[in-house]
Amino acid sequence: MHFGVLTAALFTLQDIPSTPVNSSDSLWLWIAMGVGVLALIAAFVLARIVLAGDTGTAEMQAISNAIREGAEAFLSRQYRTIGILAVVIAIVVFFGYYLSPRTQDVALKTVIAFLVGAICSGLAGFTGMYVSIRANIRTASAARTSLNKALQAALRGGAVTGLVVVALSLLGVGALFFFFGGLDHPRQVPYQLVGFGFGASLVALFAQLGGGIYTKAADVGADLVGKVEAGIPEDDPRNPAVIADLVGDNVGDCAGRGADIFESTAAENVGAMILGAALYPVFGIKGILFPLIVHAINLVASIIGVAVVKTNDTEDPMSALNRGFYVTAVLALAGFATAVYMMLNGPGVQPMYLLFCGIIGLATAFLFVWITQYYTESKYRPVKSIAEASLTGPATNIISGLAVGMETPAMPVIVISAALLLSYYCGVQGLAGFPGISDYAKGIYGTAIATMGMLSCAAYILAMDTFGPITDNAGGIIEMSNQDESVRDKTDKLDSAGNTTKALTKGYAIGSASLAAFLLFSAYLEEIKSIVTAKVSAAGSAGYMPPGWSFTNINLAEIPVFVGALLGAMLTYLFSSLAIKAVGRTAQMVVKDVRDQFRENPGIMAGTSKPDYARCVSIVTGAALKEMVLPGILAVGLPVAVGLIFRNFSSTYGAGSEVLTRNGILNVPTINGVPVNLGGASAVAGLLMVGTISGILLAMLMNNGGGAWDNAKKWIETGQYGGKKSDAHKAAVVGDTVGDPFKDTAGPSLHVLIKLLATITLVLAPLFL
Amino acid sequence: MHFGVLTAALFTLQDIPSTPVNSSDSLWLWIAMGVGVLALIAAFVLARIVLAGDTGTAEMQAISNAIREGAEAFLSRQYRTIGILAVVIAIVVFFGYYLSPRTQDVALKTVIAFLVGAICSGLAGFTGMYVSIRANIRTASAARTSLNKALQAALRGGAVTGLVVVALSLLGVGALFFFFGGLDHPRQVPYQLVGFGFGASLVALFAQLGGGIYTKAADVGADLVGKVEAGIPEDDPRNPAVIADLVGDNVGDCAGRGADIFESTAAENVGAMILGAALYPVFGIKGILFPLIVHAINLVASIIGVAVVKTNDTEDPMSALNRGFYVTAVLALAGFATAVYMMLNGPGVQPMYLLFCGIIGLATAFLFVWITQYYTESKYRPVKSIAEASLTGPATNIISGLAVGMETPAMPVIVISAALLLSYYCGVQGLAGFPGISDYAKGIYGTAIATMGMLSCAAYILAMDTFGPITDNAGGIIEMSNQDESVRDKTDKLDSAGNTTKALTKGYAIGSASLAAFLLFSAYLEEIKSIVTAKVSAAGSAGYMPPGWSFTNINLAEIPVFVGALLGAMLTYLFSSLAIKAVGRTAQMVVKDVRDQFRENPGIMAGTSKPDYARCVSIVTGAALKEMVLPGILAVGLPVAVGLIFRNFSSTYGAGSEVLTRNGILNVPTINGVPVNLGGASAVAGLLMVGTISGILLAMLMNNGGGAWDNAKKWIETGQYGGKKSDAHKAAVVGDTVGDPFKDTAGPSLHVLIKLLATITLVLAPLFL
Repeated sequence: MHFGVLTAALFTLQDIPSTPVNSSDSLWLWIAMGVGVLALIAAFVLARIVLAGDTGTAEMQAISNAIREGAEAFLSRQYRTIGILAVVIAIVVFFGYYLSPRTQDVALKTVIAFLVGAICSGLAGFTGMYVSIRANIRTASAARTSLNKALQAALRGGAVTGLVVVALSLLGVGALFFFFGGLDHPRQVPYQLVGFGFGASLVALFAQLGGGIYTKAADVGADLVGKVEAGIPEDDPRNPAVIADLVGDNVGDCAGRGADIFESTAAENVGAMILGAALYPVFGIKGILFPLIVHAINLVASIIGVAVVKTNDTEDPMSALNRGFYVTAVLALAGFATAVYMMLNGPGVQPMYLLFCGIIGLATAFLFVWITQYYTESKYRPVKSIAEASLTGPATNIISGLAVGMETPAMPVIVISAALLLSYYCGVQGLAGFPGISDYAKGIYGTAIATMGMLSCAAYILAMDTFGPITDNAGGIIEMSNQDESVRDKTDKLDSAGNTTKALTKGYAIGSASLAAFLLFSAYLEEIKSIVTAKVSAAGSAGYMPPGWSFTNINLAEIPVFVGALLGAMLTYLFSSLAIKAVGRTAQMVVKDVRDQFRENPGIMAGTSKPDYARCVSIVTGAALKEMVLPGILAVGLPVAVGLIFRNFSSTYGAGSEVLTRNGILNVPTINGVPVNLGGASAVAGLLMVGTISGILLAMLMNNGGGAWDNAKKWIETGQYGGKKSDAHKAAVVGDTVGDPFKDTAGPSLHVLIKLLATITLVLAPLFL
Repeated sequence: MHFGVLTAALFTLQDIPSTPVNSSDSLWLWIAMGVGVLALIAAFVLARIVLAGDTGTAEMQAISNAIREGAEAFLSRQYRTIGILAVVIAIVVFFGYYLSPRTQDVALKTVIAFLVGAICSGLAGFTGMYVSIRANIRTASAARTSLNKALQAALRGGAVTGLVVVALSLLGVGALFFFFGGLDHPRQVPYQLVGFGFGASLVALFAQLGGGIYTKAADVGADLVGKVEAGIPEDDPRNPAVIADLVGDNVGDCAGRGADIFESTAAENVGAMILGAALYPVFGIKGILFPLIVHAINLVASIIGVAVVKTNDTEDPMSALNRGFYVTAVLALAGFATAVYMMLNGPGVQPMYLLFCGIIGLATAFLFVWITQYYTESKYRPVKSIAEASLTGPATNIISGLAVGMETPAMPVIVISAALLLSYYCGVQGLAGFPGISDYAKGIYGTAIATMGMLSCAAYILAMDTFGPITDNAGGIIEMSNQDESVRDKTDKLDSAGNTTKALTKGYAIGSASLAAFLLFSAYLEEIKSIVTAKVSAAGSAGYMPPGWSFTNINLAEIPVFVGALLGAMLTYLFSSLAIKAVGRTAQMVVKDVRDQFRENPGIMAGTSKPDYARCVSIVTGAALKEMVLPGILAVGLPVAVGLIFRNFSSTYGAGSEVLTRNGILNVPTINGVPVNLGGASAVAGLLMVGTISGILLAMLMNNGGGAWDNAKKWIETGQYGGKKSDAHKAAVVGDTVGDPFKDTAGPSLHVLIKLLATITLVLAPLFL
């Protein structure tokens, strides 16, 4: 049977007899789910170990409790807000599906998947944060005795987040696949999981936006009024905003990035399963379950990687963390190779090529991390050039930082381009034995395997990332409770390693978002094809489906697609602008409150009375939650608006239909002789793809520019160009402050935006047709 | 005869019998050319009038002479550099064409067109500058007696640039059309003119880059060492860099923007003629000559507009300039309407709709100018918010300015989207009487008419723009020659109006570049179609051409197109980064030289001896010319590299061929049964389109962000937030300095880059196949 016809006929649930699945193949689902459960248990054990640690002096506990209360208060209010938004969107999605006759049967499933995705993401964020805000004081306390103990406490605390995030993504997708009948209808059910990715994205968007606004508003506000106006050092307990600043590290870096990576793995799981379904004739259900197995490997490798990390009191903690990462990467690669040879194999398949796709993905991750280091570490040219430019004042520091930021996308874009081209090529070669399948489908599957390869160490990377805010908090607790200099040295070392890991994971996150983007486009195109096929088939004899038709034509030369592309790129700029302005406004409220507190209570500066930390925390919480709504609604609303507008007006512009029929041969699907209107779907695809490209570049500019400014300041503080208090340092502080909302609010929120665009278009595709 | 088949057969010069052109129709060519010659005469007369003006005191003359010598020295060295590059590129283009059998016959014509375009652009730049560096002192001298005389001297000096630029573009295209035999082969010759646009683009790129680097390096360098280190005011004659700064205004703003608009009109003329050729069955040669007539109208309307401008000593000069603009716009519109009804008319055409396209273009120009005002004038929220943020220091000033900059693309993108959709719609409606022509071709022609409408006031706009550097220079001459306070008041008024016009023209330039971009894409697609058609037809019976085939499929879902798109967007960032860094490096050389001069000759600061202005001018000249080469080569090299790489490797990735044949129906052109490889052409199109989108947005960010910073500083100087010398003012100066290379180097260079990408791909299209 011709493959094109076969896939064309595949996607109407009603019409296709269920495909009996070899029960030994479905075992893979249970293996993956089993590992997921074990990983949760491991996370629980790790959490118990961390929580059993010593909690230091009463003074330290008081500080830690204040952070914990602030973080938990923010999270609970944030989740309430997100919950309300999620329910509203769930209702919209449900009726969106229900209004289209073809999708009525999946309406409820999509909403269930959406809610499960949202809840799992929330749960993962909450659990990770629950542990990390308790790990901070244990790390601080351990630093009083041994660097190794402190390092292990922080990394293990971080590992809880890493394991819970990946395991819940795996279990959520796996469970939905099973309960939706995936073992009976393996080729249809992956499409019904798109809601899971969207739910994860939605929570991630608000978690990252709200957390990002919170953390930088508190940071900038505390610095402006504390360091600049009052002349007190960072983390000084007299500063009423100091606790809000420490809370921010948790809710921004920890909960935010956790939600970001949860979304990445969720979207990648679902997208790769959809592409696996398109290759069902080659791999059967094993191709669909492969992404889940990859994440099971990811979990096992990461647990071992975390377990082997130990250090002594003289070593740079970063070396110990890197050792753990290398162990994880080698194990993940070995596991990946085994999985490829066991699952993606068979007559006509050359698994070597497919394994090579995975290696390309892993290599891409390494290169992204290396490029991020090059642009943000003080030993290389970019940071040095910013530090040197600080000699002539803040203006040249800023110009130089922006120039570095604009340079940063060049190398990553070349790496991503090479990775896409190579993995596509390997996909085509690896499946060359199937002449009936288009090279396009084979190549795209190659890029999907590369994405899985890149994400195959995600749990360890996330552990390293969450290590950052834990050590940052530990340092703050030590600083505020006036511990010994030698203890402070240890936490400073850890804090510095934490800053590095935070920067590197940002490189990793944007790299995986870039690679996953192409996978998600392809899934979107498959989704549109599946809906059109079902529509035409539902029309019975009035419908005509050209043999082997696919929706793979996102033609930039069509006006609606071009307009969609323009709007998509514009969205990334406007969204960033709103996020940055939100930080500015919220920071002003912090400044105002701190000034008020200093005025109302002169005892604070004298050190005779305590500032009201909670008041400041509560103000930032309220403002950040309010500010996250507008950019969030813009991100959700614009793609929907474009899809709906061009669905209704596109026939005027001939998008997706007229251009295809212009040659006089009917090669578009028709119902009653009228071509199916693909204008809305095409315009949205243009928005998605060009929005993604623009978002990736802008995020790199902001993340790396911000990181470079930060480290230029730190480098000057080591004594370069006059060291602390020199004019160069003052100029560098300006750059650092500018970089803060770039690298910790707008940049990371753009990662999430890119993936949200992909998942929202996947879920709402039926509305655009 | 079916239109598709007709156009498919059109484009091989050898095969098609010449189409006899109605001689009354060819009269339009002579009318347009005649007006072009008259406009040159008018420019000559205007120049005579301006040059007849009084040249002030000996002290003023000494300053003016120094500016003139510096500007002329720069221009002559710059043109030598550009000349060498142009000859090298001409040779490459010639052999590029000559290696492809189909294009051998046009190889020489393309090179001739390229060189004519480059020479005309250089000539226009040189003439405009020749007059404006002489108009500055006449303006300064006139300001000693009457504001009206000064205003008229400056505007008329600027009008010489405006008229020469538009007239040379018109005459160059018209003459080439005639000498290449356009009256005999009207449907083929427009394709042979693409070299003219490329020549103009190449000169414009280097003129804008070199001039932009020069002007801002001198400005930033002079400020850093003069205002900040030595504590002397702007334009103080003791500053050795002050003449270089004034020279910079001429070579950057005046010669640079002149080349930019020359390129816009040239590219628009050629692109619109190609689209006119595609609609030959409807309008005949009149559709091809229409763009030339529009520019003839532009010239007449602008001459009258300039002539009516007069003011009195109390009025805001901006009101007088605006009156002239309104007169020009009304006349241009009336002329445009007449031309539409006389030329774009006939059975089946509804000229009302086509006129409406032109109105849409003009309205777009107005809206762009209004939006630019909104974002850059101190009476609106954005500038006010930056000024307010300056209260908390330079960091918040910068954050706020960047947030404003990132917000700016939103409204223009919506305007451009609406303009594209509406003009496309009107194009389809206006030509609804021709069922044989695809809606796509009709709609695209509608967008082309809108672009012509937008550019129909270009000469006046350019006069207003060149008014800026002339009044800026006049102010500097008055300042340096210690004139009376009342004279200074007059030049300050003019200078302030000049700053406004400079900002507005930047809005206009980016608006026209955005709208022209779509026209140029379409011309590129037509060009590819024409080459493929010729190739297939040259293969005789071995070739197969699907009926009505067009190259209109730039499919972002194909890996090579997506990679091209990623690289195109990346190019705009890297190019901007290089331009900004070039300013920084050159400014450092200025700082060093000024410091050296102060040290070597203490009499300078004491006011007892003159600084060596020429030494500083010569240093900036050399550095700016060196620095413009790398970004220039990147801009030229990357599209060529992408085209060549994917031409050779694309078959692996199935771009432009496999996807189209996937449905099993052969709807691609083949030779010996092998599909023509369109991978290179597709990847380049992706680069072009997404590079353009990214470039437009980035340019808006930089132009408007820079303008807003500038005016926030100026607003504070009027006494807001503590006025001059307050901390808020210091913070605002930082923002202004950061904005300088944004708004005067990188932003304007991006306008040119966008158009260069379009013209280089048009010219080198044969290499990509």
